[in-house]
Amino acid sequence: MSVTSELWFEEKLELDSGRTLKIRINRLIEQFESPYQRIEVYETVPFGRMLVLDGVIMCTEWDEHAYHEMITHVPLFTHAKPERVLVIGGGDGGTIREVLRHPSVAQADLCEIDGDVVRLSRTHLPSMACALDDPRVTIYHEDGAKFIAERPNHYDIIIVDSSDPIGPAEVLFSEEFYVAMRGSLREDGIAVTQSESFYYHASIVKRLTGFAKKHYAVAGYYNTIVPTYPSGIIGFTMCSKKYHPLRDFNEARVTPMQGSLRYYNPGIHRGAFDLPSFIKNEINL
Amino acid sequence: MSVTSELWFEEKLELDSGRTLKIRINRLIEQFESPYQRIEVYETVPFGRMLVLDGVIMCTEWDEHAYHEMITHVPLFTHAKPERVLVIGGGDGGTIREVLRHPSVAQADLCEIDGDVVRLSRTHLPSMACALDDPRVTIYHEDGAKFIAERPNHYDIIIVDSSDPIGPAEVLFSEEFYVAMRGSLREDGIAVTQSESFYYHASIVKRLTGFAKKHYAVAGYYNTIVPTYPSGIIGFTMCSKKYHPLRDFNEARVTPMQGSLRYYNPGIHRGAFDLPSFIKNEINL
Repeated sequence: MSVTSELWFEEKLELDSGRTLKIRINRLIEQFESPYQRIEVYETVPFGRMLVLDGVIMCTEWDEHAYHEMITHVPLFTHAKPERVLVIGGGDGGTIREVLRHPSVAQADLCEIDGDVVRLSRTHLPSMACALDDPRVTIYHEDGAKFIAERPNHYDIIIVDSSDPIGPAEVLFSEEFYVAMRGSLREDGIAVTQSESFYYHASIVKRLTGFAKKHYAVAGYYNTIVPTYPSGIIGFTMCSKKYHPLRDFNEARVTPMQGSLRYYNPGIHRGAFDLPSFIKNEINL
Repeated sequence: MSVTSELWFEEKLELDSGRTLKIRINRLIEQFESPYQRIEVYETVPFGRMLVLDGVIMCTEWDEHAYHEMITHVPLFTHAKPERVLVIGGGDGGTIREVLRHPSVAQADLCEIDGDVVRLSRTHLPSMACALDDPRVTIYHEDGAKFIAERPNHYDIIIVDSSDPIGPAEVLFSEEFYVAMRGSLREDGIAVTQSESFYYHASIVKRLTGFAKKHYAVAGYYNTIVPTYPSGIIGFTMCSKKYHPLRDFNEARVTPMQGSLRYYNPGIHRGAFDLPSFIKNEINL
């Protein structure tokens, strides 16, 4: 008789709600208690390496492209000429990697409050952190809300690549923060924010798109399919001072970059704004 | 000290692959070994009632609309005037319920090999089985492949609402079956088949869309978001003898029905055909 043991990861947040994704693990690569949160990097059986913050899955090597490409290229291809970009959160580096694909970008600032997330991602997640040493990138370990308050009228694009509204990212889900982002954007700037799943968190989606409608000329919500996130999807609130993500989208600019993208394409850009009736009626966009 | 027990369901198929959805259960309502498979109906904590066949989740009351509305309304609003419709599988009744919303439908045949699935759904899943007594419906407990071979040039729409290609549904994933459906469709008929997730089962998607391209004038693949299915999505292969799901889609016909639909709308119909690059390049549609 042979006895073998199996290691399984279960996401903490969704467990409490009576549903959770369970993932088989080869090994825990590193676990670290930072001043802000518990950071874990696992090697999973089905999904490559996986970053977990306070028990919640941030990304896996297997499906991170669906998230990082969509949070980045939808606003950057909507804006006529994005030059200065700020990423708040996003310490794994995946969003910065996508931002730097755009030749117009001259300045890519990363404001990640937790330096240990960046440090561990550089060590264990090189496929995401690979672009952090690009000369256009500056990394700040500061509070995102304070950071933008000090930089008025500065950015073409702000991407809020945050964790959930429990813990260090809570402030990023407030109305004050949506007003502050408007102040830090140039006159034709666009902000995009991680805004949860319309299946599991419709009330958050409604609240954040409400802030966008109230404080920006153009508001939108779009969706991407990320199997390792709760309910398999995640969406983004778009807050734009001028450009419309469909009417001002110039898909010819995508062509030179298309070969290096795994998820994003012009059809997905447009289709991502088509929402099921139950949430469309709820957020009224 | 109080001790409480918790009951959790874990999907069998996905467990073997190192990933599984784990769902908290209030109680097992009924379990039955039919001649074809093990049928279970659970009352879950987060998702209402749930039908499970041979350990695989078929549907939950919470997200079944995303599946049943999309497998039905995309082909029925693509066809100019669907009158005779066949559903193969679909013993829970959810697809038939959606088919009957279309006033042009005069005949809705259900060919479900396992009569016990229909029986248990009538008893425990009335929100799905509610339309099975409509006078336009005839229920057959026969093999789907044999059934269509005996009915040449008969149906406007064939919907294959099947389980996975292991067990009783295996024959429905063969090239011969795609040829047989063509024979059973009228000259402008459309068939739509449950075709798994492009994230977890890209090779199945490629094979089935390959049959569609080879044997039908118009081939397509479209997607819907169903959180309780593996990877959170499921897709459908469209096999059409004449009508194109985008060019021939007359969205004005949706309007009178829109108020009773929870997921489907004209935007979702169109956007569902926009696929991520990694699968779009693979299936070349």
